[in-house]
Amino acid sequence: MVGRAIALDLVKDFSVTSFDVNVANLALLKEKNERITTINTDLTAYEHYPEWLSVFDLVVTAVPGFMGFKTLEAVINTGKNVVDISFFPEDALQLDALAKENGVTVITDCGVAPGMSNFILGRYNAEMKVEAFEAYVGGLPLHPQPPFNYKAPFSPVDVIQEYIRPARLVENGKIVTKPALSDRELMDFGKAGKLEAFNTDGLRSLIFTMGHIPDMKEKTLRYPGHIDLIIALQQSGFFDITPVIVNGNNISPLDFTSKLLVNEWKLGETEEEFTVMKVIVKGEGKRITYDLYDQYDPVTQTSSMARTTGYTCTAAVNLIANNIFIQKGVFPPELIGYRKECFDFVLGYLNKRGVQWVKTTS
Amino acid sequence: MVGRAIALDLVKDFSVTSFDVNVANLALLKEKNERITTINTDLTAYEHYPEWLSVFDLVVTAVPGFMGFKTLEAVINTGKNVVDISFFPEDALQLDALAKENGVTVITDCGVAPGMSNFILGRYNAEMKVEAFEAYVGGLPLHPQPPFNYKAPFSPVDVIQEYIRPARLVENGKIVTKPALSDRELMDFGKAGKLEAFNTDGLRSLIFTMGHIPDMKEKTLRYPGHIDLIIALQQSGFFDITPVIVNGNNISPLDFTSKLLVNEWKLGETEEEFTVMKVIVKGEGKRITYDLYDQYDPVTQTSSMARTTGYTCTAAVNLIANNIFIQKGVFPPELIGYRKECFDFVLGYLNKRGVQWVKTTS
Repeated sequence: MVGRAIALDLVKDFSVTSFDVNVANLALLKEKNERITTINTDLTAYEHYPEWLSVFDLVVTAVPGFMGFKTLEAVINTGKNVVDISFFPEDALQLDALAKENGVTVITDCGVAPGMSNFILGRYNAEMKVEAFEAYVGGLPLHPQPPFNYKAPFSPVDVIQEYIRPARLVENGKIVTKPALSDRELMDFGKAGKLEAFNTDGLRSLIFTMGHIPDMKEKTLRYPGHIDLIIALQQSGFFDITPVIVNGNNISPLDFTSKLLVNEWKLGETEEEFTVMKVIVKGEGKRITYDLYDQYDPVTQTSSMARTTGYTCTAAVNLIANNIFIQKGVFPPELIGYRKECFDFVLGYLNKRGVQWVKTTS
Repeated sequence: MVGRAIALDLVKDFSVTSFDVNVANLALLKEKNERITTINTDLTAYEHYPEWLSVFDLVVTAVPGFMGFKTLEAVINTGKNVVDISFFPEDALQLDALAKENGVTVITDCGVAPGMSNFILGRYNAEMKVEAFEAYVGGLPLHPQPPFNYKAPFSPVDVIQEYIRPARLVENGKIVTKPALSDRELMDFGKAGKLEAFNTDGLRSLIFTMGHIPDMKEKTLRYPGHIDLIIALQQSGFFDITPVIVNGNNISPLDFTSKLLVNEWKLGETEEEFTVMKVIVKGEGKRITYDLYDQYDPVTQTSSMARTTGYTCTAAVNLIANNIFIQKGVFPPELIGYRKECFDFVLGYLNKRGVQWVKTTS
């Protein structure tokens, strides 16, 4: 869904080829724009990358998290510039030396969250002494259905992993690990209504690149009721990894539950959803807030999650393609956003596509 | 658990032999009373019943519901009197002719619910023109733990079946079928606190034997919150029977969920629980209520569910053994309770064992 939005946006200015293991996805993409070349292949065959990628100037990697790190490493080894939104669990900065060796620019975690939150913090960290950073983000259906009141634009197993993985945040200058789903609070998000915020492990590279900021947290947003149900399932073992024996078969509860929730959480192709996000940077007596509320686009049938994530990614592609950002190495967005011309370019690029970030200062 | 309480109660007055497929259950029983003879065997080998049962005067059948009807039929064919608490889905009255042919007395559904509710309705149906019957029953842990606030004295799959099977009730003289879990209401049960009542398919034989009563319903009781979670699981497909494919294996969600909840719902061997029940009979301007509140017995380590179910069953065994009830055929308890001497005997028998039914009339 996000990959499609990226390809359709880039093909306006560039020659684009999309690789996917799924024939139906490629057919749908071709139907939307026949100028996109499609190649049906398995991208875990990393040894073929030099041959497959030799003709391209820049690569966007948008693959499932489990194969994200290896995919990125293999692309860097082909000597191509790359923008990544695979959100893999490994630390991308470990590939910095390799990227410099190959003389390539690598922008990682370049979606809406992570992504825009990093750009914003990077920008204000260059302007002032930041004392605290908070990010709140949710991608939600416009018409929630019980019992979950949720639809996942990603695979359920990735969402559940987010609910299981302990959350790292920074409090009083120290990295603190809290259970996922902790510190629940109801907050008012205007158009999006009252939503429940809870800790998730979303700070990622900021923990290392912004280690001097004493307080940082990232929270995910859901409709009230969702997390109660998630906690009930977790407590009852539905997310356990250790297999149980069912009719003679070893079945991992997490695999089973993910499989079942694929249907329950499936976002319809034309189902209305929205992205809501709030990023707060505090310091020097000021509080700078960036708010986003973006909805599904019925004209192009593009989900808001695809718009907000995908267009941040394509903005970064243009930063490289237009030589606005030319450094070599691996860069999470906070290491790019500190440059005002890069930050302004990204915000302007999003704004042209109707993804509007509203800044308030108090 | 219930079978053990039955055997230990009967061995005070009779020579008792227990059959079970589970060696550990038999060892525990032997440990509690060495006078009980134990035989480890598979009771689905119905062809062996004539040989196995020839030496006994009376048989109690307390087997899983799925094999209950066949077990009862096989016992009747051996010409033995029998009391059954297997609560199988089939209609036991279909075996009435077979029981008469074999000259045996068969008392079915002879636990607490069904069982005591039937005895009570049978009694008052003989004394007055009954206009309405209501029964409320729950077996619950004394110290409920989230998320389910529930422990099952039976196998989870049987409990879930109760949550799935549509409930038949009688309204204005007509049999009405409602979805399971419907007509939820919070009610105060004194010592047991506020509990949630909802329709379950518990009237069973009463629908046919008491067809002249215009309003009859049976509701199950749970702590608040339990049913919300059950409905969420049901809506999400966790109780579906149609298999889903998980890592190449065909897995029925109901099988999987039952397996997982075995641990979550397992009642500890010495965990405190209670049975709460209210039976209301209305007619001729009167309202007769029978209330039960019974707790786990820490001295004999007998669960309340085993006490209230098992001792109603052993009371019926004594009705037959002492020639208080001598008719031949199949009798659900309402067809026995109409006789005052039988009804009083059962209540007295329970009372001696501390299972106290409190009657109020208004």
